[in-house]
Amino acid sequence: MKAILIKEADHSLYIGDYEDPAVGENDILINAKATAINRADLMQREGKYPPPPGASPILGLEVAGTIERMGEKVEGWKKGDRVCALLPGGGYAAKVSIPSDMAIKIPENLSFEEASAIPEAYLTAFLNLFTISDLQQGEDVLIHAGASGVGTAAIQLAKEKQANVIVTAGSNEKLRYCEKLGADIVINYKHEDFSKIVLETTNNKGADIILDFIGASYWEQNMKAVAIDGRWILISALGGSKTNVELGKIIGKRISIVGTTLRPRTLEFKTSLVNQFKSFAMKKFENGQLLSIVDQVFNWRDAEDAHKFIEENKNIGKVVLKID
Amino acid sequence: MKAILIKEADHSLYIGDYEDPAVGENDILINAKATAINRADLMQREGKYPPPPGASPILGLEVAGTIERMGEKVEGWKKGDRVCALLPGGGYAAKVSIPSDMAIKIPENLSFEEASAIPEAYLTAFLNLFTISDLQQGEDVLIHAGASGVGTAAIQLAKEKQANVIVTAGSNEKLRYCEKLGADIVINYKHEDFSKIVLETTNNKGADIILDFIGASYWEQNMKAVAIDGRWILISALGGSKTNVELGKIIGKRISIVGTTLRPRTLEFKTSLVNQFKSFAMKKFENGQLLSIVDQVFNWRDAEDAHKFIEENKNIGKVVLKID
Repeated sequence: MKAILIKEADHSLYIGDYEDPAVGENDILINAKATAINRADLMQREGKYPPPPGASPILGLEVAGTIERMGEKVEGWKKGDRVCALLPGGGYAAKVSIPSDMAIKIPENLSFEEASAIPEAYLTAFLNLFTISDLQQGEDVLIHAGASGVGTAAIQLAKEKQANVIVTAGSNEKLRYCEKLGADIVINYKHEDFSKIVLETTNNKGADIILDFIGASYWEQNMKAVAIDGRWILISALGGSKTNVELGKIIGKRISIVGTTLRPRTLEFKTSLVNQFKSFAMKKFENGQLLSIVDQVFNWRDAEDAHKFIEENKNIGKVVLKID
Repeated sequence: MKAILIKEADHSLYIGDYEDPAVGENDILINAKATAINRADLMQREGKYPPPPGASPILGLEVAGTIERMGEKVEGWKKGDRVCALLPGGGYAAKVSIPSDMAIKIPENLSFEEASAIPEAYLTAFLNLFTISDLQQGEDVLIHAGASGVGTAAIQLAKEKQANVIVTAGSNEKLRYCEKLGADIVINYKHEDFSKIVLETTNNKGADIILDFIGASYWEQNMKAVAIDGRWILISALGGSKTNVELGKIIGKRISIVGTTLRPRTLEFKTSLVNQFKSFAMKKFENGQLLSIVDQVFNWRDAEDAHKFIEENKNIGKVVLKID
């Protein structure tokens, strides 16, 4: 099959030949039509984020396409069905094999490009807001990087639970978009101390939940902004990993600081997550209550341009590669 | 009434006169026979740990005694009943008023001294091991300061759940005592790197739960010792509050770092905790399955000596003041 490979010398991307993935008795082989880009891909490309044991070395954490073939024990699916899925790797390829339990039926109103942009962003937001944080109606949620893929999904999911959504982003265009998706309070982190605004808009209570992709550079502001008994979810550390922490503040505010990942989780965990997500979300995608936010679609031959677009923080929502 | 008061000039303790506590319609007035000492008392005495709003300024977070009088709405108790209770303050006094929902009936086989040593240590251990960490049978629990009041309670509670209990302490006498209470692995932190032993004895998995009273000085070792998906409970920071943290490790291991306190919690929270604890534990105290570990009983006139004993880390279990 064709797949996007990485030149060892300069980490540049090219389309080359790679062996077809194995299809076990419980697996589905997908004829891929689209994949979406994640920051993890950029790190993996640079050799900084090795795939978990057993995963394909090919980049790509999500896919959308049609079913080409099924293992003998697979039930409930047929050739030609439109599906999307979360992957531990292998998405930048013409063919992708997945355990059938991980397949998500694509609603008729969504294109392959839109469907490929759902799994990673929405399952990450769902896991962190619902499974881990147990978000309750009326709680105050602070979502950093509100215009990112996960951010745009998290805003919509939090509004489905009637939470009060506060977001940060780095441009007025991004903030307006977050408002369109339902964000109640939007903060341009380049011009304002977000902790002040979070405290002002919550009667000095602070945020019950923080989705933190930033880490070190936001630490002190987050510490001020988090409420007593708050859940502070560390998803990535784009603003640095090393920071000084005052443990007395964590104790005094009874904060739960929770590190989370999705990719290296067990298949059992992911299957359960996907099933919960499907029950909660897929009807809402069908009737337009939830949206897959795709900023740009690149042909997969232009994957490097797509990576550059993400690297420059230009995107609102997801950037997709069309596979032909 | 008589109470232990603090001289402003030098923070020394003396028995003086203080107004009797108010007894509301849902309250019980206790004729106090014993109170037990907590490290918080030593800090409060130095002016470093102000009591929460509404609490008595008198030291003392627990009491045992007999019921002297009840508010008109109190049911299920009678004058002379032997009770003990967790307090937000006011325990170093001849009379203590508590909401009746907080009262714990003292089992007949326990003295007032033993009963006064139960509430703070056991409720802290119960809260952190069961309510917050949801300890499961067979999990590996690392309990620092294993010979402390909370430590000795935590060892016994964890063994009731058939967990594997690893403790640290600073003398062989303390370690032997922890073993007597059921600890499976004991580590003298003065001579050994506890993280190495935790990893060795858990097949490199690490501790599922850490009860951390130490904070900064143990940070790196705890970070090595904690398992993937581990719950790291910050109860106090006796070894320093400020530390350098690598957030990437918290994310990579999916650690939950949870700050916890008991004293400033709402009465509703504490009442619920006390009820859960009573159902789980009081029969076990009656039949000797759980023990209240009292190292020394001082007359309350010698409260300063008792504080000094704690300050010098000499105690195994609790130090009690007999009130006469």
